[in-house]
Amino acid sequence: MLTLVKVGGNVIDDAPVLNEFLSAFAAAPGLCLLVHGGGKIATELGAQMGVETRMVDGRRITDDASLRLVTMVYAGLINKDLVARLQALGCNAVGLTGADGNTLPATRRQHPTIDYGWVGDVDPTPPQPDLPLLLLQQGYTPVLCALTHDRQGHLLNTNADTIANAMATRLARHLPTRVLFVFDKPGVLLDVHDDSSLIPHLMPARYAELKAQGAIFAGMLPKLDNAFGLLHSGVQQVVLCHPRHLAALLANDETAPCTRITL
Amino acid sequence: MLTLVKVGGNVIDDAPVLNEFLSAFAAAPGLCLLVHGGGKIATELGAQMGVETRMVDGRRITDDASLRLVTMVYAGLINKDLVARLQALGCNAVGLTGADGNTLPATRRQHPTIDYGWVGDVDPTPPQPDLPLLLLQQGYTPVLCALTHDRQGHLLNTNADTIANAMATRLARHLPTRVLFVFDKPGVLLDVHDDSSLIPHLMPARYAELKAQGAIFAGMLPKLDNAFGLLHSGVQQVVLCHPRHLAALLANDETAPCTRITL
Repeated sequence: MLTLVKVGGNVIDDAPVLNEFLSAFAAAPGLCLLVHGGGKIATELGAQMGVETRMVDGRRITDDASLRLVTMVYAGLINKDLVARLQALGCNAVGLTGADGNTLPATRRQHPTIDYGWVGDVDPTPPQPDLPLLLLQQGYTPVLCALTHDRQGHLLNTNADTIANAMATRLARHLPTRVLFVFDKPGVLLDVHDDSSLIPHLMPARYAELKAQGAIFAGMLPKLDNAFGLLHSGVQQVVLCHPRHLAALLANDETAPCTRITL
Repeated sequence: MLTLVKVGGNVIDDAPVLNEFLSAFAAAPGLCLLVHGGGKIATELGAQMGVETRMVDGRRITDDASLRLVTMVYAGLINKDLVARLQALGCNAVGLTGADGNTLPATRRQHPTIDYGWVGDVDPTPPQPDLPLLLLQQGYTPVLCALTHDRQGHLLNTNADTIANAMATRLARHLPTRVLFVFDKPGVLLDVHDDSSLIPHLMPARYAELKAQGAIFAGMLPKLDNAFGLLHSGVQQVVLCHPRHLAALLANDETAPCTRITL
């Protein structure tokens, strides 16, 4: 089974939590692939370098200077640090952007009124050959950062959840696949400030109910819509959890706190 | 035949020359691997970020801040820009550091009086499996930047010529290999300021003569010692040239200006 893990920026930013995450991930059985977000490092470093962060509707506007910044931080600093640390933990990691091996060709986003800059939407047709699939079959662990490319020589900034979804859908055609979204909460919470309000199991009917009640907070909605979409695309399991419980989950401990999404 | 190209920092820094280089490299026949240096971008960006460049005997002292800087610039900005641009030119490039796939394990340099910081010397025993070899055999073009790792979770800064040599020696055991050092001169010059003083062909006896006369300038000596070393290690050809003449050379044009090193 392939375990595709998406780890959020909040985990990347928190040194002890990141350590816990990497130890659990490196020890995971079977084939693994990691997709990572960016964290606050790009914004902090941007401030240091005089690159202004412009957000529209929660999305970073990626001008030339911002693209250079995220290329340095996502593909360089974060990706290669993760690779070196996973190597030390016995995991044969290979760091990739979507440009490497033409892994994630994408199209620069067109919007009638907003110029998002160098932001890309992943092309629906997967490229042949498939580099991450080759690497998995040869015993490597691909580590993907949130950059794609336009096949015309430009990198593009792309949401890490979107990349996780694109890769999971693609790889599920070749390998039985589960997807774990690892972030700074134990799973889906009814009250975002109360970990004991965790929903251990979420099915479509209950999700529709909670949505109708407005009981699931806004940031979770696209995550959960994507999760159900993955299950419809052939992914066998989708789980949301905190790094603290990742090791138990990967060891198939049924009592580990998390949210399991099923159809 | 494998063509391993090492491209120098001076070429990376010069946009029109870099364009010329990438077009020629992308069109090269057969298997190719690229090793690239860093250029001035790291120093310039370091100044912008308040990271001081400390040099001892022509070598950058790599403290924590410098390692972060070169990781961002070499593995992020330069490597991924080269990959995206090669992809646009139809070359299926995959950017790597020596940490990816454990490609270049190294040991932090020990020196009795100077602390070079995070500087690594490549370990003599090549790792198994060999990721660049796998990628070459599958039709990809590995693009290596000048970073290695200590297998304990740290990246290390390593000279790009050294990396080119280590890779060429390793791969020559599996594939007939030629090595091209591409830099801002047409080859080895008797007078560094006069391109017409190019030495088209250099053999050990003539090299010893020129060395004894002090006719070859200091920076060339380690490059040429390495070149002869490569030929003794099973590499079939070593050539030094300017990007302007790379396309002709790769098309086996015998009249293209360059220095050919032979035994």
